Amino acid sequence: MYLINNWYKKIILLSNIAEDSGVRGCMIFKPYGLDIWEHIKTKINYLLKKTGHKNFYFPLLILKSKLKKEFNHMKGFAKECAIVTHSRLKIKQRKLIIEEESKLKNELIIRPTSESIIWDSFKKWIKSYRDLPMLLNQWSNIIRWEMRPRFFLRNSEFFLQEGHTAHSTKKEAIRHCKKILNLYKYFIEDILSIPVIKGRKTKLEKFAGANITYCLEAIMQDGKALQIATSHFLGKNFSRSFNVKYINKKGISKNVWGTSWGISTRLIGAVILTHSDKYGLILPPKIAPIQIVIIPIINKNDDFNIKILDNIVDKLIVCFKQNKISFRYDNSPKYRPGWKFNEYDVKGIPIRLTIGKQEIEKGKIEVFRRDTRKKKYYNITKLKKNLIVLLKKIQRNLFKRALILQKKFICKVNNYQEFKKILNTKGGILYSHWDGSTYIEKKIKKETSASIICIPSINKKEIGKCIYSQNFSKQRVYFAKSY
Amino acid sequence: MYLINNWYKKIILLSNIAEDSGVRGCMIFKPYGLDIWEHIKTKINYLLKKTGHKNFYFPLLILKSKLKKEFNHMKGFAKECAIVTHSRLKIKQRKLIIEEESKLKNELIIRPTSESIIWDSFKKWIKSYRDLPMLLNQWSNIIRWEMRPRFFLRNSEFFLQEGHTAHSTKKEAIRHCKKILNLYKYFIEDILSIPVIKGRKTKLEKFAGANITYCLEAIMQDGKALQIATSHFLGKNFSRSFNVKYINKKGISKNVWGTSWGISTRLIGAVILTHSDKYGLILPPKIAPIQIVIIPIINKNDDFNIKILDNIVDKLIVCFKQNKISFRYDNSPKYRPGWKFNEYDVKGIPIRLTIGKQEIEKGKIEVFRRDTRKKKYYNITKLKKNLIVLLKKIQRNLFKRALILQKKFICKVNNYQEFKKILNTKGGILYSHWDGSTYIEKKIKKETSASIICIPSINKKEIGKCIYSQNFSKQRVYFAKSY
Repeated sequence: MYLINNWYKKIILLSNIAEDSGVRGCMIFKPYGLDIWEHIKTKINYLLKKTGHKNFYFPLLILKSKLKKEFNHMKGFAKECAIVTHSRLKIKQRKLIIEEESKLKNELIIRPTSESIIWDSFKKWIKSYRDLPMLLNQWSNIIRWEMRPRFFLRNSEFFLQEGHTAHSTKKEAIRHCKKILNLYKYFIEDILSIPVIKGRKTKLEKFAGANITYCLEAIMQDGKALQIATSHFLGKNFSRSFNVKYINKKGISKNVWGTSWGISTRLIGAVILTHSDKYGLILPPKIAPIQIVIIPIINKNDDFNIKILDNIVDKLIVCFKQNKISFRYDNSPKYRPGWKFNEYDVKGIPIRLTIGKQEIEKGKIEVFRRDTRKKKYYNITKLKKNLIVLLKKIQRNLFKRALILQKKFICKVNNYQEFKKILNTKGGILYSHWDGSTYIEKKIKKETSASIICIPSINKKEIGKCIYSQNFSKQRVYFAKSY
Repeated sequence: MYLINNWYKKIILLSNIAEDSGVRGCMIFKPYGLDIWEHIKTKINYLLKKTGHKNFYFPLLILKSKLKKEFNHMKGFAKECAIVTHSRLKIKQRKLIIEEESKLKNELIIRPTSESIIWDSFKKWIKSYRDLPMLLNQWSNIIRWEMRPRFFLRNSEFFLQEGHTAHSTKKEAIRHCKKILNLYKYFIEDILSIPVIKGRKTKLEKFAGANITYCLEAIMQDGKALQIATSHFLGKNFSRSFNVKYINKKGISKNVWGTSWGISTRLIGAVILTHSDKYGLILPPKIAPIQIVIIPIINKNDDFNIKILDNIVDKLIVCFKQNKISFRYDNSPKYRPGWKFNEYDVKGIPIRLTIGKQEIEKGKIEVFRRDTRKKKYYNITKLKKNLIVLLKKIQRNLFKRALILQKKFICKVNNYQEFKKILNTKGGILYSHWDGSTYIEKKIKKETSASIICIPSINKKEIGKCIYSQNFSKQRVYFAKSY
């Protein structure tokens, strides 16, 4: 099995998506990785603008005194902050040292998320019911001091999309949380081809400062779960801490209700862990920076007219542009076709076309699908239509494959011994009864490393006995070892 | 005169481009300001990709030990660094304090620019002449601890586009520096309608770590100069400090030659200071997030058919979409037309169309130009063509106006008394002889606050006497008080 050792890291390095930077937990985004992120960003940005959100940009640095305001929130992030304490360096005896006199009176925290600074502005901006709902979005880089950093999944620095909203009623705020969760679900399933489980977090696992954390969870090929998106109902926690009030239609001053939600470059990690195979990355067409690569095969001794090849390629390129298919025509003489085949395999380009003497003579072109690794020959005349269909097919096939995997990994378990055994062998998501107690949840986590990844939102009513305590349980929840 | 007091700040606040954040020197980008930046970014990104540059993203945090490597570079930024020293907070007696045990062994600097971290990677990536030239670009946020922060012009945090390249020959590196400077010049003059002076910095004013700093300088309405873009020839400074060598075609190991260059959100400040008037912002059409606003005038007592109005507007919208003209149709009943006129004036929308009963009856539409503040009536049938022409006219007119201003402000001066007098009255750029000595340059700066903004690249050969020392001078240079 290829899912071992440094498989994940190797794919990232070989496909030239990212690499280590030498700064703990921070990586360098290479052009290919940045392109994938730009695709994700453009599409989610479009969806958020369409649903009435506006982009803002708040400062990177947060005053310690503001972070402090919402107690639970602060507590949740206190142990993973990058703290700025000084503003000048000096040279002393050929050494570069910090100038003690430049010590800041008010220390600053590099944002681990932006609730504190945004609620500080909500206070200024929200006066009346006419200002509500206030729907903000931000794209930014953030720092969380991860103990065990990992490419894309647990970086110290990563890119975050974070939405922050304020509403006049609880109902509206919760509805908004759910709406965003569904928007994420659509994006992740339809564009990234990753099937997700929708639910909410337990008290233990929810976001620091939230009343409810709704979440999307996915299962990776190695049987570990990955939290892929979250949407938090903040209740009045932040509006009370930051004293954000509005005058309602009756002239009465009321606290607003808050939400916040986000996705991050973690999505790239999810794509890699869901779709890749032993040959490298596989990108769903809708997110691939290059959807089709064309590789010409020209042997010195071939006697065919190079103009015919150029002509075919030109026509293809016109068609790709018309249909907004992103492509690369790689006719560089620097590398041999075999090297290129491997290169584009590793990079996960959905479709590869090969055109050489044979193809031209037969009027057929070799089409290679990255997902199934199968070759087919298409008539040049029908190529255009077939390729558009094929891209859709690949997109669907990747989702289907991942869904089969997900189903394979979900397993109903009623016995704690079996529960532990499965976790230690095939892993995956265990669907078991739980009595609702945080104490038991912690016990299980300590003994097995599995946490409750979510209480599913679509859940059959079923009473039973808690897998651990044997106490009364009113529903099953999902347990898994998580990234 | 309107160019007084807080005029600049007021325009920023009233047009809703940005506002203060409460964190020293950091501002909040509002949606309108962020939109302008996204326009700038998209266009420059396109130009840089077209010229072979690839986007990377390097970490926000730089190891102090790496910053130290290039001595002059480090010295230049040492006094304005945000330094991260700890990674955890804790609560003690209801206070949030820094956990001393979390002190970092290796302190980190928030990037003030990314030369150090990028040259550290160049060392890994550059092996042979085949890897050259290496053309990198990065879009990011950076921190410089400004003593006197100012919206867009001197923010502590701002957005930067920074290019970094490595070349095999000195000639090629210098050529690249100049090529980029011309690219910036094209963008700033053609898209932002700001005329610039091209030149290079003196030894005193050049970038920390560069051998030559090429620059573009502009003059603002208040007679102060603004450095608007720079392009640095780094020589072998970084390649020696970071030991970046390549094997040339003859198999010999050689140090590479470096360049770096950038523009930033400062460009937005330049647009505001160049084009605005007492009514608010004026945006050049090519950079305006909204190029045309349509405001319908509907009085309750008007007896005309609202469908006719809708019909006209629909046709306009189709035309705008076809011609990629960005527009807003503001038919919100929330505000009266007068309020809207003012709002879009302040926001600097290039063209405002008003459509009401009168206009429909006469078959003519009122067209208001923001730059000249003149109204005209255009036949509905000829509107489309006229508007496209008008947008181009406004773009050119703004440039022309700024060019006249620039010429008005450039002044040949041969006498130091006059030099000081002009600086203290109308300001502007003084074209005077200088003997080339840094000592004299510093003296003048200290006495008048004017620095040498650049040694112009297009310069008539003219010998003369230094304005200060009376020593022999082989050329005139530009002096000015600068932002």
